[in-house]
Amino acid sequence: MTATRVIIDCDPGQDDAINLFLAFASPEEIEVLGITTVAGNAPVALTQRNARLICELAGRGDVLVHAGCTAPLSVAPLTAEHVHGATGIDGLDIWEPAMLLQPVHAVDYLVDTLLGADQAPTLVATGPLTNIAMALTREPGIVPRIERIVLMGGAMREGGNITPSAEFNMRADPHAADIVLRSGVPIVMLGLDVTHELLVTRARLARMKAIGNPVATAAHDMLAFSERYDLAKYGKDGAPLHDPCTMAWLLRPDLFCTRPCSVAVETGSPLTLGHTAVDFWGITQGRRSIQWAYDVDVEGFFDLLFERLARFPAARFSRRRSA
Amino acid sequence: MTATRVIIDCDPGQDDAINLFLAFASPEEIEVLGITTVAGNAPVALTQRNARLICELAGRGDVLVHAGCTAPLSVAPLTAEHVHGATGIDGLDIWEPAMLLQPVHAVDYLVDTLLGADQAPTLVATGPLTNIAMALTREPGIVPRIERIVLMGGAMREGGNITPSAEFNMRADPHAADIVLRSGVPIVMLGLDVTHELLVTRARLARMKAIGNPVATAAHDMLAFSERYDLAKYGKDGAPLHDPCTMAWLLRPDLFCTRPCSVAVETGSPLTLGHTAVDFWGITQGRRSIQWAYDVDVEGFFDLLFERLARFPAARFSRRRSA
Amino acid sequence: MTATRVIIDCDPGQDDAINLFLAFASPEEIEVLGITTVAGNAPVALTQRNARLICELAGRGDVLVHAGCTAPLSVAPLTAEHVHGATGIDGLDIWEPAMLLQPVHAVDYLVDTLLGADQAPTLVATGPLTNIAMALTREPGIVPRIERIVLMGGAMREGGNITPSAEFNMRADPHAADIVLRSGVPIVMLGLDVTHELLVTRARLARMKAIGNPVATAAHDMLAFSERYDLAKYGKDGAPLHDPCTMAWLLRPDLFCTRPCSVAVETGSPLTLGHTAVDFWGITQGRRSIQWAYDVDVEGFFDLLFERLARFPAARFSRRRSA
Amino acid sequence: MTATRVIIDCDPGQDDAINLFLAFASPEEIEVLGITTVAGNAPVALTQRNARLICELAGRGDVLVHAGCTAPLSVAPLTAEHVHGATGIDGLDIWEPAMLLQPVHAVDYLVDTLLGADQAPTLVATGPLTNIAMALTREPGIVPRIERIVLMGGAMREGGNITPSAEFNMRADPHAADIVLRSGVPIVMLGLDVTHELLVTRARLARMKAIGNPVATAAHDMLAFSERYDLAKYGKDGAPLHDPCTMAWLLRPDLFCTRPCSVAVETGSPLTLGHTAVDFWGITQGRRSIQWAYDVDVEGFFDLLFERLARFPAARFSRRRSA
Repeated sequence: MTATRVIIDCDPGQDDAINLFLAFASPEEIEVLGITTVAGNAPVALTQRNARLICELAGRGDVLVHAGCTAPLSVAPLTAEHVHGATGIDGLDIWEPAMLLQPVHAVDYLVDTLLGADQAPTLVATGPLTNIAMALTREPGIVPRIERIVLMGGAMREGGNITPSAEFNMRADPHAADIVLRSGVPIVMLGLDVTHELLVTRARLARMKAIGNPVATAAHDMLAFSERYDLAKYGKDGAPLHDPCTMAWLLRPDLFCTRPCSVAVETGSPLTLGHTAVDFWGITQGRRSIQWAYDVDVEGFFDLLFERLARFPAARFSRRRSA
Repeated sequence: MTATRVIIDCDPGQDDAINLFLAFASPEEIEVLGITTVAGNAPVALTQRNARLICELAGRGDVLVHAGCTAPLSVAPLTAEHVHGATGIDGLDIWEPAMLLQPVHAVDYLVDTLLGADQAPTLVATGPLTNIAMALTREPGIVPRIERIVLMGGAMREGGNITPSAEFNMRADPHAADIVLRSGVPIVMLGLDVTHELLVTRARLARMKAIGNPVATAAHDMLAFSERYDLAKYGKDGAPLHDPCTMAWLLRPDLFCTRPCSVAVETGSPLTLGHTAVDFWGITQGRRSIQWAYDVDVEGFFDLLFERLARFPAARFSRRRSA
Repeated sequence: MTATRVIIDCDPGQDDAINLFLAFASPEEIEVLGITTVAGNAPVALTQRNARLICELAGRGDVLVHAGCTAPLSVAPLTAEHVHGATGIDGLDIWEPAMLLQPVHAVDYLVDTLLGADQAPTLVATGPLTNIAMALTREPGIVPRIERIVLMGGAMREGGNITPSAEFNMRADPHAADIVLRSGVPIVMLGLDVTHELLVTRARLARMKAIGNPVATAAHDMLAFSERYDLAKYGKDGAPLHDPCTMAWLLRPDLFCTRPCSVAVETGSPLTLGHTAVDFWGITQGRRSIQWAYDVDVEGFFDLLFERLARFPAARFSRRRSA
Repeated sequence: MTATRVIIDCDPGQDDAINLFLAFASPEEIEVLGITTVAGNAPVALTQRNARLICELAGRGDVLVHAGCTAPLSVAPLTAEHVHGATGIDGLDIWEPAMLLQPVHAVDYLVDTLLGADQAPTLVATGPLTNIAMALTREPGIVPRIERIVLMGGAMREGGNITPSAEFNMRADPHAADIVLRSGVPIVMLGLDVTHELLVTRARLARMKAIGNPVATAAHDMLAFSERYDLAKYGKDGAPLHDPCTMAWLLRPDLFCTRPCSVAVETGSPLTLGHTAVDFWGITQGRRSIQWAYDVDVEGFFDLLFERLARFPAARFSRRRSA
């Protein structure tokens, strides 16, 4: 079996960081072709730097990181410092990464890589979908060159987290989401309906810390920070873990229940901007082209996460610039 | 303790009928001042007749029934024959009721009764909110003359039933719902988040039938009909029971968990028309003026329902015109 | 030839007042069955009083005046004191009218009168359409009992006056306008495209004053006040005269060019709320059910206006209560 | 005086072609850095070919032509074959152009050229604004590198041409228009309010034909074709000429009256999608950042056009590939 070749479009973000760790820990299953970053949890100047930090932390200073769009297509920019802190990855000690940012813009990188690939890569998207929507609009010819888009976003049962009716990634760029959902590319969509099940409880945080290697410790420290907001808001036993569901689905799709649904995103109304209308019960005539995740094996997910984090070496990787 | 004086605005509908039975079975707690009917589950020509049939069946041919608005304010009319059957209360043998329809329009009845009442009545609303919105627009002076509106409508966790994002009563007249929710009247709102818990299972249907009196039997027969649609759609063990939650809340508020929330209804977007944006987690600045029901004691609810249905006499009431 | 029987729904407003003068001066052609008032240029407490003042001023203390809706259906109330002054008819000395307000609400009056009329009356509407929309929703059976609605509202070539894209009466209650335009009643619609041609220039004001009778003088004084706003805004030679185009159309339809068009009003978007999409060139499939006025014989209009104002007697009418 | 350096973003289209002729005929005033093409009047496969045809016809096979976006950002594609014919420039005999299409995508060309230019170029836009919006989103750093955008689009007094409330270029990509209008780049906007004054009458067509050189003849032949639709629709003496107003404004701004206005474009409502809300009278708080053209010297415009068309040589340019 060959590894799935992925491009990861993200806005790190503590949970994006965990997702990258999950990918880097799984070289037999996941080959990371490159990383593109977008404004979302933090401005793009931070998300591209954070992506490089995370790569270095995981010993993957060889990965190509590209900066992408600095603002959404049509709505006012939205960031989430109230959740992620001023750096986007508060909880981690920040350094200036040695690895360089690639000079090519994320959108051009996506178009060129997809058009040039021998076999169609998979896109993993854990931020607002601006970069991918831009690439699809710039070059519709990439549609058949994408194996699948596995994205974190949307909500059905859980309403929303940034507004009562919308999830953050969808609300941050609803027009981009609309472009992606209508593109015809096969999509797996993992939203709050599953991520609100994946609670990082005290016990799980402790288990993560106990792993003891530097990467797992960094993961722990970041999540210990970012949970504050959700703990205060929801008053639950732990904060939801969002983005790592995408890599988990690629590694272990059997952990998730999905159903082919028609999904549309609201782009017009101020009240419901970014809301995902998920036709779970098949009551509209919409084409059921999105695999909507509606349940997850919570213990299985965390077992996977901990097992993979434990794969990292006990010693810190050198932060010197690779290659 | 005096009984709560209520006006019931409804669109029977099998579940509206059960709700009326619940009221009529509880004279110590509920005094029915009158019934107003609206287009919704069926056209108003049927819902006003059905309301009279249900009154006669329950031996309450003395109750004043008024016909109201035949269509929503601003959207195209929507009925639900696919759920309720051609009569609106399929499952029941229909007769021509002896009791007469009141000549006064529901909106005028509401305005006049509310302005003339010694103590402010409670409105119980189990259909689209057209009549109540019309009364509020016609005479805003009624606002302080309404003790409370207890309504079945909306959805937060459960998305929607008539569209992926909207519950039937809200979608059927979103502009009326918007008027009511913004009116300043205290509101208790019971939507799909609780009614989708109240499943009329095979066992519960059997228990209802076993009661044996004519009213309970009629209740059974109607629900045995109307469940077909939802059983096929949801593939669950039973169909949700919607409208009786309103009277149950008046009789036993302790059966429900509610939280004061800001709730807004979508009136503009075709995709999300009638969606209720429930700010359950207090993330907006909206005034938390609506008591939103988010949980229910399912067994307690059905125990109450069966206990009340059992209060009806074993012999059929005469259908001759009362008064 | 018999007179056209009209009910005038208005929100006086200086230009509504001139429109009433035009009706009262034309008994051979116009029989005023009654007046209903609505919130618009001023709150309904003022518009109903103003309507009575204008009746008394014109010696028609016998006309039945009914107060109607105090607020629009679904949007936040909008008044226009910046144009009309605090009284709604600034420029006129105000007194407490002797004639009484009718106790019946405007909506009930409309429904009852229309259902009871031997021949279908014409509705003349010069304010927001709340009352008429409420009557149509309350009793759709009135549709065939209305000969025609002649209304002032909307704009095609002239954009808007209260917002860049909407005329005041449409914007003040867009949902009511939508209900009326879709009702199926024959409609003549006179908007800014004609009223912005009807400029009350210095010369015309002087001509009005020169008539010399108390009614014409009152008309002059009111318009001399209300023009201030538009003169400052448009910097033209005179302010547009809006509402009297409705009665002028009834008296002399030959003064106007109209074309059957499909007209839809925007009810959803904040930016364009109340905009009238007039399909003047027949490029949509919409039913061309509205007679849209697109040109007017300006001199002919003012000649008619001055000729009718000159019909009023030289002596002031007694303000004692008539009937 | 140095020539204004322009990049022309267009969707030829007969009137785009005339606009290119106007630029090529004016080398003292206009230096064409390059041409980018977009889907609009015809699909981009045709508009890029047509741009090359027009260049060759005008003896400018040296100009760099780039193909851009094939579809709008967020709405379904809209073309206008009913106006422009199957080729987009019906009326002209089509050949396969010798000059090659540049391999670089229009969006990349725009970004790279703007970032690399010594002095900020002017963008002239006569189609949907997809390419420019994509460039602005891809690289916001280009904002200060654009001298000005002179665009054909929108309508205030004239309502719309593709729908009752929207002009074609705005409606074809309203989200792109929204991005451009809010970008902060200085904008001159020439819409239907001026282009509907610029009628290509029989007399003007005859005058164009009488010029006699091949370019003027081609201009004549194209306009003689494209007028058919508007003549039938408007029943006027001639069809409006849209796109050449942009180059005319650059050559002779004194021919136009403009006023700084706030202009917003509708992106949400199906009814009014693409409508431009032009705050001509300053009644909103919007920033007056757009120079809105509201009048034009019609004779002066056509004199300019004919004078420039007459500058082309009497003999046909060779169609061999230049450079």
